[in-house]
Amino acid sequence: MASSLSPFFLFLITCSATLITPANSLPTFFPGATYQSLIKQAKTPKPKLPFKVHYFPQTLDHFTFQPKSSKIFYQKYLINSHYWHKGAPIFVYTGNEGDIEWFAANTGFMLDIAPKFKALLVFIEHRFYGESTPFGKESYKSAKTLGYLNSQQALADFAVLIRNLKQNLSSEASPVVVFGGSYGGMLAAWFRLKYPHIAIGALASSAPILQFDKIIPWSSFYDAVSQDFKDVSWNCYEVIKGSWEELEAMSTQKEALAELSKAFRTCKSLHSTASARDWLWTAFVYTAMVNYPTEANFLKPLPAYPVQEMCKIIDKFPSGATKLSRSFAAASLYYNYSRAENCFEIEHEVDTHGLHGWDWQTCTEMVMPMTCSKESMFPPSGFDYEEFAEQCQMKYEVLPRPHWITTEFGGERIQKVLKK
Amino acid sequence: MASSLSPFFLFLITCSATLITPANSLPTFFPGATYQSLIKQAKTPKPKLPFKVHYFPQTLDHFTFQPKSSKIFYQKYLINSHYWHKGAPIFVYTGNEGDIEWFAANTGFMLDIAPKFKALLVFIEHRFYGESTPFGKESYKSAKTLGYLNSQQALADFAVLIRNLKQNLSSEASPVVVFGGSYGGMLAAWFRLKYPHIAIGALASSAPILQFDKIIPWSSFYDAVSQDFKDVSWNCYEVIKGSWEELEAMSTQKEALAELSKAFRTCKSLHSTASARDWLWTAFVYTAMVNYPTEANFLKPLPAYPVQEMCKIIDKFPSGATKLSRSFAAASLYYNYSRAENCFEIEHEVDTHGLHGWDWQTCTEMVMPMTCSKESMFPPSGFDYEEFAEQCQMKYEVLPRPHWITTEFGGERIQKVLKK
Repeated sequence: MASSLSPFFLFLITCSATLITPANSLPTFFPGATYQSLIKQAKTPKPKLPFKVHYFPQTLDHFTFQPKSSKIFYQKYLINSHYWHKGAPIFVYTGNEGDIEWFAANTGFMLDIAPKFKALLVFIEHRFYGESTPFGKESYKSAKTLGYLNSQQALADFAVLIRNLKQNLSSEASPVVVFGGSYGGMLAAWFRLKYPHIAIGALASSAPILQFDKIIPWSSFYDAVSQDFKDVSWNCYEVIKGSWEELEAMSTQKEALAELSKAFRTCKSLHSTASARDWLWTAFVYTAMVNYPTEANFLKPLPAYPVQEMCKIIDKFPSGATKLSRSFAAASLYYNYSRAENCFEIEHEVDTHGLHGWDWQTCTEMVMPMTCSKESMFPPSGFDYEEFAEQCQMKYEVLPRPHWITTEFGGERIQKVLKK
Repeated sequence: MASSLSPFFLFLITCSATLITPANSLPTFFPGATYQSLIKQAKTPKPKLPFKVHYFPQTLDHFTFQPKSSKIFYQKYLINSHYWHKGAPIFVYTGNEGDIEWFAANTGFMLDIAPKFKALLVFIEHRFYGESTPFGKESYKSAKTLGYLNSQQALADFAVLIRNLKQNLSSEASPVVVFGGSYGGMLAAWFRLKYPHIAIGALASSAPILQFDKIIPWSSFYDAVSQDFKDVSWNCYEVIKGSWEELEAMSTQKEALAELSKAFRTCKSLHSTASARDWLWTAFVYTAMVNYPTEANFLKPLPAYPVQEMCKIIDKFPSGATKLSRSFAAASLYYNYSRAENCFEIEHEVDTHGLHGWDWQTCTEMVMPMTCSKESMFPPSGFDYEEFAEQCQMKYEVLPRPHWITTEFGGERIQKVLKK
């Protein structure tokens, strides 16, 4: 799962794991957003970044001319001109679903190459995230405000801002290259497609632009996560795969929540066994997503090759231990590598980087169906579009447009190439 | 001005000819829309076309997810499958600012080549024109409804409809080529730019995609019109050029309107000398725009090489005649080639093909500045953006976005190439 280009792998995992989760709740596995451990990232002071903060007066709606469309909001962007020589390239990070400082602090690649290219570095925050909220605290109130949160509006924001910036710097001739990871990588790729007159190139890293409609098998994502564990140790994969059944069996017992709270060393008693399931799930998925070859701290502080480290824990466990207890121990690496804490706040969500807007995006255009095959290490499950759409209707009074992204950005020709 | 590819040259001419026109009126020179002669095209029965009529349930707003965005309206499209073999290409006309039958009846080129390519022919009506009005009779009421009328929404309509049509025909593998003239040509070119995964090619004819911002000199259009007349006869060009001054002089005289009504053989007395000016202007501009090498009837019935015919009339005039009377006689060719009528309904506008939506489009994104240089055969004039914007504010309560089209679709690199 790891990419050598960028450390960004954020996106919503919508595999409808119906094993324990109640049918009416949308699984929301945001890195750093749910099941926050005691590491308490929210209180961690923001890193001092080598960027100056700017705000651009941005148009609310680029694609209609309603009376409200021309409302202005202030879009945050960061600039580093330390290495820049006028006329040299402009490297733009097309911000994704979180505050822009987080991405700026974790895209060392752009800072690394800036001196060689004498490049100007620009990190643009995505509308509705961080400080770039068009309606302030009311931004997430309903579909009336959230309606303006989508990828095409974000791309147009980038286009308008970049053009304006180049004019202000009298650097219209500077070539622009866009960078992004995960959803930011999708935006970078799509920006190059839709605005080739503005960007001469795009570096899209870990960008799941094919995770729509029926372009690739829906099981691809969880198969890839599972493969990461299989590659390290077949036993490790089998232990994790078997642990869900043990968890399910446990949940039917008397005093299940008390037992589970004890076994999972929770700070407060659990209210649902699903929380324990999701907590484990998140640990395995996000560890695979940040399986970097070096020690890093993007989602959590983790050692180099953390999947390997997790499997070491599982494989070295004393014989006779349950699969669930091994899985718990492995997951603890993700939540407590720093070993600072003695218990876990499993049901206490903290949205450290303001990622909750992604939930709206998946309910409108970012419909990325994911299933778990029998070969994956997760409980087999399908994707029920009707149920998903109903949940979106209930939550936001909006219906998804599941075929819109492939209509707007394509991808199906690639499907043909892949099939050949 | 003539193109050998397509007979479409419609677009708004916004040269602010302030010679007589009151400053607070927007010049609107639509072919067939203003200063309709006695030929009464409105009563002409529609030609029987070799197409079947269909209606597609289209989404109102592709780019936001407001509660209103998902409203459905019915978009008209025409199909000719007479020559089609399954798997063969699909030729799509990207409809412009009028009813789709008009364009279908005047794009013989597509019908001509269809047998050779065994092609399916599709003509898609542009939203807000013809029968494709999202709010029925209320569609033009205010910015609240008109707000959804713009080129990007139209392109998305085409994308959604084409994709759906191919699925319904089980012909996903058929290559699509888009065709268009004038604004329809702009849409064809832009469609290929923005939706390369849907169209493998575009034939854009007489498409002024560079008539925005400062890409080309603002005087280009009227210089080209004038050049057409110069190329035929220098005397002809000079007579027309001199006629405006005579008209202006006449308008200051006593009984000017009565004199002018007589000289221009109007059916009813004129209320403004500007009407006579605009009537002449329209004749010269649109004759240059449809200066086809064959007899044709797109805007009006006209002979082959109509500019040449106009100049013959001017050049053969008895000596001693005024320039204005010669210009009037030449203009009469445009309005009355069929010689069926004895007087002209100069101030009676008939919008035969429902073109009035274009006025809104120019007040929002289609800001195409045009001026008349001293070398043109029209009175020299500038383009006052502030005044233009004020008129749009008054008329529609909307402010134009004059730099949006070049941000969204580019064109400025071409400017650099042209300058080299």
